[in-house]
Amino acid sequence: MSPKCHDPEPALSELSAFLGNRLARSKSERDLHGGSESHFAAAPPNAVAYPETAEEVARIVRVAAAHGLPLIGYGQGTSLEAQTSAIAGGLTVDFARMARVLAVHAEDMDVVVQPGITREALNRELRATGLFFPVDPGADASLGGMASTRASGTTAVRYGTMRDRVLGLQVVLADGRVIRTGSRARKSAAGYDLTGLFVGAEGTLGLITELTLRLAGQPEAVSSAICGFPAIGPAVEAVMAVIQSGIGVARIEFTDAATARAFNAYAGTGLPEQPHLLLEFHGSPAGVDEDAARTGEIVQGFGGSDFQWSARTEERNALWQLRHNAYYACLRLRPGARAVVTDICVPISRLAEAVEAVTAMVERAGLLGPILGHVGDGNFHAVLLVDPGDADEMARARTCATEMAELALGMGGTITGEHGIGIGKRGLMQAEHGEAWAVMGAVKQALDPQDLMNPGKLVPDPGRNG
Amino acid sequence: MSPKCHDPEPALSELSAFLGNRLARSKSERDLHGGSESHFAAAPPNAVAYPETAEEVARIVRVAAAHGLPLIGYGQGTSLEAQTSAIAGGLTVDFARMARVLAVHAEDMDVVVQPGITREALNRELRATGLFFPVDPGADASLGGMASTRASGTTAVRYGTMRDRVLGLQVVLADGRVIRTGSRARKSAAGYDLTGLFVGAEGTLGLITELTLRLAGQPEAVSSAICGFPAIGPAVEAVMAVIQSGIGVARIEFTDAATARAFNAYAGTGLPEQPHLLLEFHGSPAGVDEDAARTGEIVQGFGGSDFQWSARTEERNALWQLRHNAYYACLRLRPGARAVVTDICVPISRLAEAVEAVTAMVERAGLLGPILGHVGDGNFHAVLLVDPGDADEMARARTCATEMAELALGMGGTITGEHGIGIGKRGLMQAEHGEAWAVMGAVKQALDPQDLMNPGKLVPDPGRNG
Repeated sequence: MSPKCHDPEPALSELSAFLGNRLARSKSERDLHGGSESHFAAAPPNAVAYPETAEEVARIVRVAAAHGLPLIGYGQGTSLEAQTSAIAGGLTVDFARMARVLAVHAEDMDVVVQPGITREALNRELRATGLFFPVDPGADASLGGMASTRASGTTAVRYGTMRDRVLGLQVVLADGRVIRTGSRARKSAAGYDLTGLFVGAEGTLGLITELTLRLAGQPEAVSSAICGFPAIGPAVEAVMAVIQSGIGVARIEFTDAATARAFNAYAGTGLPEQPHLLLEFHGSPAGVDEDAARTGEIVQGFGGSDFQWSARTEERNALWQLRHNAYYACLRLRPGARAVVTDICVPISRLAEAVEAVTAMVERAGLLGPILGHVGDGNFHAVLLVDPGDADEMARARTCATEMAELALGMGGTITGEHGIGIGKRGLMQAEHGEAWAVMGAVKQALDPQDLMNPGKLVPDPGRNG
Repeated sequence: MSPKCHDPEPALSELSAFLGNRLARSKSERDLHGGSESHFAAAPPNAVAYPETAEEVARIVRVAAAHGLPLIGYGQGTSLEAQTSAIAGGLTVDFARMARVLAVHAEDMDVVVQPGITREALNRELRATGLFFPVDPGADASLGGMASTRASGTTAVRYGTMRDRVLGLQVVLADGRVIRTGSRARKSAAGYDLTGLFVGAEGTLGLITELTLRLAGQPEAVSSAICGFPAIGPAVEAVMAVIQSGIGVARIEFTDAATARAFNAYAGTGLPEQPHLLLEFHGSPAGVDEDAARTGEIVQGFGGSDFQWSARTEERNALWQLRHNAYYACLRLRPGARAVVTDICVPISRLAEAVEAVTAMVERAGLLGPILGHVGDGNFHAVLLVDPGDADEMARARTCATEMAELALGMGGTITGEHGIGIGKRGLMQAEHGEAWAVMGAVKQALDPQDLMNPGKLVPDPGRNG
């Protein structure tokens, strides 16, 4: 039960009157929406709504606001910091029934979608246009959720993050007003960048009901490779050298020896249990060949072996399927375990030092924690495998994660490259932002004075904004 | 005199005590800072401060806040919508003495600068690093000003705008708090994008005292060309075709026949008085040649003539010098005239239609108004040459500018691609943003409740925030 809304019943019965069976109150629905893919305790909402239009969302928000009922937006539930957890109770707004493509503007390379559509579903619909939506966080997340967590993933090194790909939004605010931000123009200097403010706000400022997204052209040629290294240091130094050379790599992913072991156990592959780089190039056939050749030279200079290229679609898909399943593969290294996932991002020049320091931290803490990530951005994860019932181990994992965050901040980096804050990293926000965290709180207070929108996430508690 | 601060003297004498002769009160200084490059009436401040550190800026802000004195940030005064005009009186904070490069991180391709440094001065300091700062609005503007107006210019089609190039900021808020936003990491999901909020805020939310900027590698090869067209339509259609082909053009600029006439009169060139495209490619020697060849084919398909390439530095510089001086050249077409400059930006698919409609609007209004712009972004300007003393002509120019803005909005575009709002386009904000303009007002109210930071610009008047 929410501390804000001591009795959700009046609000829920009012909502039920117009949503009918699209207001779900069964235990299974509530449990499904209160869980998480990570290590956090479940926190189910009082009910789940399935709106079909922005007008319905606005009506839901007005009813919730009148009764003080918290509201949590929900896409696919794949976020890793418990962003969709109903820690103050309330109503989860699931966008599963708002998952359509509304308009494709192929000439302008943009698309207008509802928030519930997933990136894979969107790309299936775009296949015939010669265009695609390039942001790829691994999970088949919803676009509304990806915008809300400012997701990125394996392709950000070339195509940017959600920050770079959202041109405009329709948002329902905490008082039920429906606004539009941005436009279909490629750039604008018309006032505050509200689009950028809602992207990454994790639903704490409003509910996204429509997105205009910038697409990319499907590359004429694609080539992928996987390459083993004798040690972590040279692998990461090779990444730094490739990035600094200016070669336009489309993906450049690092996985450590433990991740290779996880892949082998999960998918029956026979990878050497050593650090690897996974690479991909997009471009013209000649351009891809040139990039591949130059990268091959650089990588071999750092002792990289088995530098095997493939332009064959099936082989490439198998490679990236492996990478996309890395999180689940790592979880299986220790049956029954949950994961405390870190997500630091540092300037490229500090990357090798950072990965080696994190490796040492995991070892020192006596934890099993494969390391992998989008190293072309300076972003990587330690997947700390823990038994949530073992208080000592949980404490060691949390301490270890905090040490990593402090390491990143000391290097001029950030505590989270792409997973966001939710409840998991909220305790580190003051350390990263100082007084600027209170400024975020002041913006939240201005747009959601009742603190109804995903309360308890990202910003300081109300009253700490002073 | 400010309506907020009925007597600036107590504040100014307090400031004078610690700024000494870095608080300027002469008429010439005040007039210089209250003027504008565009058609707006002069509005000088009560005084001009020249701080040397962020701590001094914070002290200035605290004194101003205590006395209700408005504060206007100032770089080079090259903005076009009277962003630096002291319409409510107050103190102009000129960053001329905060114009240093604080750190160059060549390996990470970023640089930390003070707000007063200009883009050309920065690029001179970077010359030996192999890196450069690519945003180029034409004028040699300050980086703090460019961030504040979310500037872009001729290279945005390849290198993005200030939105894409500012990694982090130090900002002095309206209550004197000094915050840092962003980091040196390439991406972050750590809370609200405050960097993006201050970029484009035109000094209405705080004063920028430091910027971390993302640089680009100096291209190995550069090639430029100029190409004439028999009519506007085919020239703009050629742009659309080049952009849609995915060729990585670094600049693609349109100028109409009147602009060619202005160039000839200003610089003694002998350009045919017809529409032109000015193009530039950056890359490897082979890449630039390939791009040039493909573009040449496309452009010739639309009747382009005189497609002359030059990889020689002097010739290229002369070409872009012409383009950079276009605004001043246009002004000289009519001695004594001032300019009402429009700045619409539309989706690429609507560009030809938009340029032709704007041409017709200028003719119908009986105005002289050369048309030119960064058409690769869908962004172009009509430079409406007016006699500020002729009320009828001013009214026709304003009506014409409003018609153009409405045209852009009807096409899914924006009223300003890069010049910003200031006072000149504030009357159009409601039309572009609807209720979202009030949301900008609520954000302003939260961060600057006294309305001291550049009052009267960009956001609605206080009390209109609902």
